[in-house]
Amino acid sequence: MTDLAAGRIRHTVVFTLAHPEGSPAEAEFLVAAEALSAIPGVESFQILRETSPKNAYRFGISMEFAGPAAYTAYNEHPEHVRFVQERWLAEVADFLEVDYEAL
Amino acid sequence: MTDLAAGRIRHTVVFTLAHPEGSPAEAEFLVAAEALSAIPGVESFQILRETSPKNAYRFGISMEFAGPAAYTAYNEHPEHVRFVQERWLAEVADFLEVDYEAL
Repeated sequence: MTDLAAGRIRHTVVFTLAHPEGSPAEAEFLVAAEALSAIPGVESFQILRETSPKNAYRFGISMEFAGPAAYTAYNEHPEHVRFVQERWLAEVADFLEVDYEAL
Repeated sequence: MTDLAAGRIRHTVVFTLAHPEGSPAEAEFLVAAEALSAIPGVESFQILRETSPKNAYRFGISMEFAGPAAYTAYNEHPEHVRFVQERWLAEVADFLEVDYEAL
């Protein structure tokens, strides 16, 4: 991983699904989430496994934006809004968003 | 940021300091934390600002390890143990560790 450059934003979210671990519904959700990577402005998109024994989150998504305008455009993009409303709110049991910028 | 490769671990921690925002003590803590990057096995080390309005954390540290052995060696390294005992426990008000591996 290269350093996050000044002005760029790394948007991350860790989450736990309502679906049973290893279930088809879990796998299907992760496939659907992958489609967020196609929204304009999204860079370095990766869905990850969260593995710290010190928290209960099981997955994470990390992406980067060139700056605040790209981040806002993503948040307001119809595909993102639809994913949140139709999938995230129904299938995610707990989550935390963490955003980074260079110091 | 390139994808986190299979087998690698991205260790992150978000935190809030007990020090006032923008204080010399805050700056000094961040300088001291930077020294963790010199511990063997630590890669892609970066101290970041946490900027999401959806949580109260103000800083983050991100680093990567080639695998579990390197991560364990870091955790047990005397410089890391000393930093945790002498600085982290005294100066960090709240924190959350989040670790990632490839899906």
